[in-house]
Amino acid sequence: MKPNDLPSTPWVLARRAARMNPSVIREILKVTERPGIISFAGGLPSPSTFPVAEFAAASAQVLGQDGPAALQYAASEGFAPLRERIAAQLPWPVDPAQVLITTGSQQGLDLVAKVLVDPGSRVLVETPTYLGALQAFAPMEPEVVGVANDASGVLVDDLEAKAAGARFLYLLPNFQNPTGRTITEARRAELSQAAARLGVPIVEDNPYGDLWFDQPPPAPLTARNPHGCIYLGSFSKVLAPGLRLGFLVAPPTLYPKLLQAKQAADLHSPSFNQRMAHEVMQGDFLARHVPRIRALYRAQRDAMLAALARELAGLGVEWNSPDGGMFLWARLPRGMNALDLLPQAVERGVAFVPGAAFYAGETPDADALRTLRLSFVTATVPQIDRGVAALAAAIREQQRR
Amino acid sequence: MKPNDLPSTPWVLARRAARMNPSVIREILKVTERPGIISFAGGLPSPSTFPVAEFAAASAQVLGQDGPAALQYAASEGFAPLRERIAAQLPWPVDPAQVLITTGSQQGLDLVAKVLVDPGSRVLVETPTYLGALQAFAPMEPEVVGVANDASGVLVDDLEAKAAGARFLYLLPNFQNPTGRTITEARRAELSQAAARLGVPIVEDNPYGDLWFDQPPPAPLTARNPHGCIYLGSFSKVLAPGLRLGFLVAPPTLYPKLLQAKQAADLHSPSFNQRMAHEVMQGDFLARHVPRIRALYRAQRDAMLAALARELAGLGVEWNSPDGGMFLWARLPRGMNALDLLPQAVERGVAFVPGAAFYAGETPDADALRTLRLSFVTATVPQIDRGVAALAAAIREQQRR
Repeated sequence: MKPNDLPSTPWVLARRAARMNPSVIREILKVTERPGIISFAGGLPSPSTFPVAEFAAASAQVLGQDGPAALQYAASEGFAPLRERIAAQLPWPVDPAQVLITTGSQQGLDLVAKVLVDPGSRVLVETPTYLGALQAFAPMEPEVVGVANDASGVLVDDLEAKAAGARFLYLLPNFQNPTGRTITEARRAELSQAAARLGVPIVEDNPYGDLWFDQPPPAPLTARNPHGCIYLGSFSKVLAPGLRLGFLVAPPTLYPKLLQAKQAADLHSPSFNQRMAHEVMQGDFLARHVPRIRALYRAQRDAMLAALARELAGLGVEWNSPDGGMFLWARLPRGMNALDLLPQAVERGVAFVPGAAFYAGETPDADALRTLRLSFVTATVPQIDRGVAALAAAIREQQRR
Repeated sequence: MKPNDLPSTPWVLARRAARMNPSVIREILKVTERPGIISFAGGLPSPSTFPVAEFAAASAQVLGQDGPAALQYAASEGFAPLRERIAAQLPWPVDPAQVLITTGSQQGLDLVAKVLVDPGSRVLVETPTYLGALQAFAPMEPEVVGVANDASGVLVDDLEAKAAGARFLYLLPNFQNPTGRTITEARRAELSQAAARLGVPIVEDNPYGDLWFDQPPPAPLTARNPHGCIYLGSFSKVLAPGLRLGFLVAPPTLYPKLLQAKQAADLHSPSFNQRMAHEVMQGDFLARHVPRIRALYRAQRDAMLAALARELAGLGVEWNSPDGGMFLWARLPRGMNALDLLPQAVERGVAFVPGAAFYAGETPDADALRTLRLSFVTATVPQIDRGVAALAAAIREQQRR
């Protein structure tokens, strides 16, 4: 019982551990968590949208009616009624047997990487792309290759140039994290055909699709070629992230391996949470609830667009106007660098994420270094006004240097 | 939108996917789930021990007081008060900063394998060992090597013979799944010294340690050499498995990589569940609750031992008498095979898991083929009596053939 008498143990890390790194965003968020900072940095849904009372009622109902079952081990595939509901509400024919409940859609990315990625095998991503996906893929040691895009989405020419040997193309087609960009109907049709022709499977990640502001986004890529796609969904943005519930829909040929990977990873997602989510969504709850989230986030986006137009006029900054989701993408004038701007912005009381964090692979180019991601959903409208004014002041100061 | 016009997509699986296989136990459980079968096969805690009312109160409390925070994204490390509580109750000095909340202890095994196992690297396990650990390690493609043991635990001589290059030794020291065996104090002391001398880290998995019947098991291996061990714990057996909450305790040098693997795997374990578990465990709840589980399981073990002595007398079957946990280990007479016995047992209305499922690596030898795992916690005492009688009848029939 004297540990100091024992020789120290030589832990040997797996090679893949070298690919695991702290999230840049996480590190930024730590800095910006200090009180008084207005944060456009986080990707947190507005807690005012969480249906707390409905969850309380659902929890009481589930524990009262099925307590022992809700608290017991359960099937790795997930709670059958929840899988049926998911299959029924997707806009293409889905057999509930193709639906796998995951511990957040982040786990779906982990399972996909485990089943499809060998060390050195190619994975194609958008430029830029979701940082969490890069982190989920990294331990399986892929060669991550960014495909170029324009405002309509991934460029088919560049996809063709990079397709050889790709295990899959990872897409976030709706109100993308980080850019807010949505792939157009025409580009989806082209991409779907091209991917099938090139033999490149698509992994379609759709956490934000329900958060449209004026009209729903075009049909999913998966709906156009279900046997060539894995589709990932989430309850984090329409219900609440703290339940950690997502799902994937896989072709029948792939489902068994994803299920086995799931079973090995955590046996099953919490049965209590699955039953509670199912209970909350009974009837037309989402049809009433989600429009409220859309209206709130649209008002917040409008507030940010108005503040940007007002405060950044003449500074040479560009930004887009997303049709839904949580994020807006801005570009500083030539010669500026968002990483350098951040500390000055934080000093003035506002935070954002430099866009360079979202570029796969190599050192981001000068263009990427000018980008920043602004979340418009966590801050209130008055905070948005003050935060954008502070951002403008920081940019002006930077330009004077 | 005409999927049939598209060429079919050539999905390429990662090499590691060949190591993912359906759980043998899962397949057996499917067969035995038909109504009327008395199952000694499953590893399910008795649902009568789940504190349903306490969870209902805790859920109302958490949602009422901290609803938005409980439903929001949260730190990958876990809920700080829960980590503090875990650190405080472990029987050696643990800094809460070393505690990582996992989505069941199964996820702890997944993270450990990701961070420590390269393809072909050696992992040492007990003979037999927990099947779920073999499944969690398999995707990282280890060379799994079973170390021999006697009734006191792993044999130090055999550990020495097999230690070269081992990334870790995986142990389930208390009331092991599947054998019910507990490693003795003397053997723990020997093993701890030997592992440190040989430079072999230990991964200590302790889901059953609190379920002792007469006296607590000896101190954990980790307590004897915290820098040379990763410790895995679980709330599945003392609270409920349906929350999917476990934890690991890692040396400060390893913690960051395990944390990064955790973040990539599912961002964090459900914040709501962590707060609910913490709320339920306030005050002296476990000190009142766990003794009730112990008393119940001890009575069930005694019932099974009595039934075995009564029904199997003279049949040449041997079994052990576990000091805690959920499982008992039996051995059929020479020449018999538990796999062959199972269908006949099921026909007579009773199920078990053939022990061969728990042996790592190569084809199990004749000795392993005679073993079976009997869970005494899921069936009621009258069911245990009927089930053991049915088992005896099946063995007799098999012996007549």
